[in-house]
Amino acid sequence: MARSDEQPRPDLGKSYTATRSLTLDLAAPLSDADATLQPHPDASPAKWHLAHTTWFFETFILRDHVPGYALFDEAWPFLFNSYYEGEGERHARACRGMISRPSLDEIRAYRAHVDAALLAALPGFAPEVRSLVELGIHHEQQHQELFLTDILATLHENPLDPVYMDGPAVAEGSAPPLGWTRHDGGEVEIGDDGTGFSFDCERPRHPTLLQPFEIADRLVTQGEWAAFMQDGGYSTPGLWLSDGWAWVCDNKVESPLYWACEDGHWTRFTLSGRRAIEPALPVTHISYYEAEAYARWAGARLPTEAEWEAVFGNADAHAGNQLDAAAPVMPDGTPGPFGDAWEWTGSAYLPYPGFAPEEGTVGEYNGKFMCGQFVLKGASCATPRGHARASYRNFFYPQQRWQFTGVRLARNA
Amino acid sequence: MARSDEQPRPDLGKSYTATRSLTLDLAAPLSDADATLQPHPDASPAKWHLAHTTWFFETFILRDHVPGYALFDEAWPFLFNSYYEGEGERHARACRGMISRPSLDEIRAYRAHVDAALLAALPGFAPEVRSLVELGIHHEQQHQELFLTDILATLHENPLDPVYMDGPAVAEGSAPPLGWTRHDGGEVEIGDDGTGFSFDCERPRHPTLLQPFEIADRLVTQGEWAAFMQDGGYSTPGLWLSDGWAWVCDNKVESPLYWACEDGHWTRFTLSGRRAIEPALPVTHISYYEAEAYARWAGARLPTEAEWEAVFGNADAHAGNQLDAAAPVMPDGTPGPFGDAWEWTGSAYLPYPGFAPEEGTVGEYNGKFMCGQFVLKGASCATPRGHARASYRNFFYPQQRWQFTGVRLARNA
Amino acid sequence: MARSDEQPRPDLGKSYTATRSLTLDLAAPLSDADATLQPHPDASPAKWHLAHTTWFFETFILRDHVPGYALFDEAWPFLFNSYYEGEGERHARACRGMISRPSLDEIRAYRAHVDAALLAALPGFAPEVRSLVELGIHHEQQHQELFLTDILATLHENPLDPVYMDGPAVAEGSAPPLGWTRHDGGEVEIGDDGTGFSFDCERPRHPTLLQPFEIADRLVTQGEWAAFMQDGGYSTPGLWLSDGWAWVCDNKVESPLYWACEDGHWTRFTLSGRRAIEPALPVTHISYYEAEAYARWAGARLPTEAEWEAVFGNADAHAGNQLDAAAPVMPDGTPGPFGDAWEWTGSAYLPYPGFAPEEGTVGEYNGKFMCGQFVLKGASCATPRGHARASYRNFFYPQQRWQFTGVRLARNA
Amino acid sequence: MARSDEQPRPDLGKSYTATRSLTLDLAAPLSDADATLQPHPDASPAKWHLAHTTWFFETFILRDHVPGYALFDEAWPFLFNSYYEGEGERHARACRGMISRPSLDEIRAYRAHVDAALLAALPGFAPEVRSLVELGIHHEQQHQELFLTDILATLHENPLDPVYMDGPAVAEGSAPPLGWTRHDGGEVEIGDDGTGFSFDCERPRHPTLLQPFEIADRLVTQGEWAAFMQDGGYSTPGLWLSDGWAWVCDNKVESPLYWACEDGHWTRFTLSGRRAIEPALPVTHISYYEAEAYARWAGARLPTEAEWEAVFGNADAHAGNQLDAAAPVMPDGTPGPFGDAWEWTGSAYLPYPGFAPEEGTVGEYNGKFMCGQFVLKGASCATPRGHARASYRNFFYPQQRWQFTGVRLARNA
Repeated sequence: MARSDEQPRPDLGKSYTATRSLTLDLAAPLSDADATLQPHPDASPAKWHLAHTTWFFETFILRDHVPGYALFDEAWPFLFNSYYEGEGERHARACRGMISRPSLDEIRAYRAHVDAALLAALPGFAPEVRSLVELGIHHEQQHQELFLTDILATLHENPLDPVYMDGPAVAEGSAPPLGWTRHDGGEVEIGDDGTGFSFDCERPRHPTLLQPFEIADRLVTQGEWAAFMQDGGYSTPGLWLSDGWAWVCDNKVESPLYWACEDGHWTRFTLSGRRAIEPALPVTHISYYEAEAYARWAGARLPTEAEWEAVFGNADAHAGNQLDAAAPVMPDGTPGPFGDAWEWTGSAYLPYPGFAPEEGTVGEYNGKFMCGQFVLKGASCATPRGHARASYRNFFYPQQRWQFTGVRLARNA
Repeated sequence: MARSDEQPRPDLGKSYTATRSLTLDLAAPLSDADATLQPHPDASPAKWHLAHTTWFFETFILRDHVPGYALFDEAWPFLFNSYYEGEGERHARACRGMISRPSLDEIRAYRAHVDAALLAALPGFAPEVRSLVELGIHHEQQHQELFLTDILATLHENPLDPVYMDGPAVAEGSAPPLGWTRHDGGEVEIGDDGTGFSFDCERPRHPTLLQPFEIADRLVTQGEWAAFMQDGGYSTPGLWLSDGWAWVCDNKVESPLYWACEDGHWTRFTLSGRRAIEPALPVTHISYYEAEAYARWAGARLPTEAEWEAVFGNADAHAGNQLDAAAPVMPDGTPGPFGDAWEWTGSAYLPYPGFAPEEGTVGEYNGKFMCGQFVLKGASCATPRGHARASYRNFFYPQQRWQFTGVRLARNA
Repeated sequence: MARSDEQPRPDLGKSYTATRSLTLDLAAPLSDADATLQPHPDASPAKWHLAHTTWFFETFILRDHVPGYALFDEAWPFLFNSYYEGEGERHARACRGMISRPSLDEIRAYRAHVDAALLAALPGFAPEVRSLVELGIHHEQQHQELFLTDILATLHENPLDPVYMDGPAVAEGSAPPLGWTRHDGGEVEIGDDGTGFSFDCERPRHPTLLQPFEIADRLVTQGEWAAFMQDGGYSTPGLWLSDGWAWVCDNKVESPLYWACEDGHWTRFTLSGRRAIEPALPVTHISYYEAEAYARWAGARLPTEAEWEAVFGNADAHAGNQLDAAAPVMPDGTPGPFGDAWEWTGSAYLPYPGFAPEEGTVGEYNGKFMCGQFVLKGASCATPRGHARASYRNFFYPQQRWQFTGVRLARNA
Repeated sequence: MARSDEQPRPDLGKSYTATRSLTLDLAAPLSDADATLQPHPDASPAKWHLAHTTWFFETFILRDHVPGYALFDEAWPFLFNSYYEGEGERHARACRGMISRPSLDEIRAYRAHVDAALLAALPGFAPEVRSLVELGIHHEQQHQELFLTDILATLHENPLDPVYMDGPAVAEGSAPPLGWTRHDGGEVEIGDDGTGFSFDCERPRHPTLLQPFEIADRLVTQGEWAAFMQDGGYSTPGLWLSDGWAWVCDNKVESPLYWACEDGHWTRFTLSGRRAIEPALPVTHISYYEAEAYARWAGARLPTEAEWEAVFGNADAHAGNQLDAAAPVMPDGTPGPFGDAWEWTGSAYLPYPGFAPEEGTVGEYNGKFMCGQFVLKGASCATPRGHARASYRNFFYPQQRWQFTGVRLARNA
């Protein structure tokens, strides 16, 4: 949330409308049935994303700050609260995919109702309420990315390999050789620099000490990953963390998620259906365990979040990093500092020194997840335009890989 | 399947059309999303039932007996084979609910395609193929009942208590006192008597010996079940089989399935939504364990399948036992020998002496399930008209209760 | 339990002493640690068997019928009650193997204490108490067999293949060809004939009707089983019950329990350690699923319990059927009607017509297990001398195979 | 391992003998059966600890560095390798408790054999081999602590509450008020300072930046923990991390491990049996989740490992921190900087900048566990004398609490 001592951005209504509209665009290719399914407990149905982001605005803004506002449906908050204990009992996360009603159209009506009420009240909001609106917009942007990763997971459950939207032709050729950028270490500052929106977990900005290191100038590619597989990467315990090796064995992992091998040919399932491996493009859908093992195999290691931010702190996500319903959602591999895939770091997701969660129930947003997860930096091909920034701290458990996750190497200088 | 030495019924095309049409009527109140969900691995999505029954006709009749027939879609048999090992690999049963595509409309088109092809070819079918058509009709009738039980289970997952179709007003009052009918025992014949269709497991008809016994003249009611609960039925281990008590404890069972208690008032979830308990109507959705424990509590026992058939062998399911999309699907409690709810017997589902499964892959229909399940006799409010007969052997595992299962008492004379 | 209208056997004290002594002999080769382990929840530690059988006498005889008897240790009944709900709370079955104290020696002292008290009081017991003593003796004999099967399971967990006691040289050669005995069917009587001890589940004796059938004159051998395996028995779904095939797949079953293959040679783990397959000896440690699939592969079926008893009703277990600490415990294959291995029947374990459990808590002995299990007839190499009889109804779940279970074929005549 | 550029300590043989002897002393109160059991997969049998520590010396020193040494038993390395992938296949960790043979006495003989061989060869060892001996001694000291925590877990499985060794009288009274020590932050150095033995994960010593903070002058006590419980600590989701609250709910946690409540009185199970709560003594056997929730409840937080080491870097574990078979093993609460219980920090167990694992298979000792665990600093009442040091990095998963784990509070200054 933006700090309250800052001027609210003048274009809040425009941002709100644009973000709400993009979510509907993302849902356009889906049937009610597509939007109802939950492929696994980490993911949520598309319909649920549409409703939950709406519930966020309805609850923390309309209900709390608009006198006389009546809930669209009193039974729905139970269904569409995600994890806010402060909002009371709610539907079990693992059961979100068993709710065929309300329909997708009814949820669209819910969105329209909330949008109308919020836009009508917006001009009168106090700065702290405007900050909550801004938080809600960024919240919805996060769910836009989850929407896409969850639809990918959903369609992947179907043996018929359905297509969400058409993609470009399969890219051929290989990536340029990996280059390394040196950093001399020393004291650096990381965290939100106060020039724009940030989540509480990015604050406070603070100094930290680094040793000299080098960092790769691009992500690991699908072609390089195929070489790792060819070299026995998934069958060599010495390359793996103990937990990682147990995960490989228990789940019989032998490739990134969504990759499959038929008659000796590897393919991967994408939002544009099943495609051949594209050697020059970044590998995605890998777990922390895989990223870490690959780095060891490559004689390198993962960067820490501080190292990453020291290097990319002044960079923007590259131009290809945008998302609309007409764009192919896949790593585009165009040159640029970051933005094709979230980059696993070797840093645990823990509070910055002096961290304090937001006041109120929205304080459950980040802080209570600071245990057992790793930080990912950057952004991905599924991150909406304008949502990426260098201080962003994305976080997932080390075994999770249904996001667009990739790896960039680092090494001691 | 009808025995091959018998004349095919003249109205086979009419039966086919009526049955296929009824299935579509059952699906009419459902959205694509409703029809996609699978509430638990024992149940299947409505859409799957529509497609699987069609696959049965397409595979065992059109593909096998109509030269030149082309499959509607070559990828679909993998999705819609249920358990026929003879037909090769298939989609995992527990994952049937993750298939949002094909849509409900596409499956309706599949049905129309197969219906047209089958009706066109029907006049030329040899008697054994006509017998397979008859088997397919009865197969689809079984799935009509499963369709309803599975939709009930699906809608029950939704905290909003959705309604499949409206029902009659809640019945008040209590049932007449239980009466007992005596049978003198001795040698009786059970099994298919050759006057109509039967499944292979109902054959051969054979003699068996009975001891004198008495059987109740009606099913146990919801009101009587409430008395059992009130008397601590679910917390008295001495009433239960060992497996039953473990099931009660592991699952924290304290009422029939779909019953719930709020503020001291019990309700049950039905196809017409949540309703008050109706004391005069038969209790349904109970497991074998519960039926058996209730009988012990009542100083009685369950009838064996031979006892049941000795008593009801010449009776018809009562007039209320019909099913169409306009009828309420719930025990109607009108007088008549049977038909409100499937009646658990104390007999294991095992082969009759001399049993031989059907030839070919359809021989997997019944015989391979003869282990660990109990026989249920009669029919239920969800059984389609014309599908019930006294020799019918329905079968489920002792813990299963998502069917319309009830209990009729018996005792030694 | 012996019926109360019968004269108690005059040698009850002698029987008691002999049975109690044999149990101690069985334990002689074991260390305290050996006797403490529980290999899986179906089995129990040897120490537990020694204590539980003692608890049975202490509870149902000394505590209930000997005024002034003081429990050896008031905390022990909680540990050594098996499943008698009427005796209240007890230690969880699956946790029996976590009790290193009391030691084996302390349990021997417990046995001596109870033995002394019981033998002192025995002369004054009323007939119904003498009947309970007789029941306790047969109860302990059952546990002697379980003791051996559970020690086999325990030692099998140890990769070092430890030996319980030495066995004879490995038998070579093959069995004589299988012969068939015909029975004309008709009305036969089965169940306890009143000439000796029986459990309640063997009563009442009653008539039943049989169709003509044939039954094999010996058990299926290890050599024949190897042929079944060689012929793809474990990889042909059409041979298996549906539940059986799921069990094969889920557990990756490819041989009887305790068989292992190294460098193409099959061996089996026995109480005398790991041995080569002995082709002429009966196969043991097979599940109902395996027995049933084998029979189908062999073009036969399993006998029903009534068929089995109709044939063997007047036979005795053969002479080799004895058990003492000096004898090898393995199928001896000597000629004789039965006794090498328990024989799976195709009959579910259900109450005989008119069955009534024993009065009181000992009524939990059999009746509450009448669900989901199959009857096994005969006896095994581990059944103590004098415990076998033709009316005996042993029972296990279809997947269980840690007992000495085998298969005899039958077929319709 | 000691750095190779350092002089080996002159008293290596004496250290070796003392450590090996203490392990035997710890086992003296145990029966073979006690020493065989494994209470849960995180813990190991006492017998296994005795053998595994011996296997470590036999493998990495005698086998690798003493020409002509013959293994005591060639089958045993399979049983007693813990997790060293470089040593090949091994017995599954979760099955360590199913090995009744070899007996405790046979394992004592194994120890004697290896000790004799090692002490005979010790004078001729090169410095790097002497370093491995030193590593083995520290490895065995770690297992001495695990031995005690695992025996506690084992005896706790027994409803009879057995005693490992007698303890002192129950302490009454309450602790002195909590005081706070301030640290000004700034750049500090942490990690091994090169003055003694260290594990690889304590290296390299490196600078880090701290903000000003305060740290408590003693551990949280049992009395304070009781107040947390009384105040609803275990039923207030807002106090907990998200994973922690799920853990509380899934496991129905309502107190530290080993605490039990009967008739309103809380007790805890200890190595001296079940005891009353001792309010002045440190609380132990708490998970990271509990420590973190308690800190939030108390308006504080956990210290980071760098903060902890900045404060205690020059302190020694207090005098009470010793362990021999005659001493009570429980928090003694005597004044001193640390040593009663391991102190959870808020730092993930991750590599120090520049970390490199040891060469060879012993490099699996620490590095491969750097994922998902938290660092604990200090030492406990079960840590052997001489094994504690301020740079020590102990590590466990956030849900684990069978160690002697406690909590010390910190807060921002």
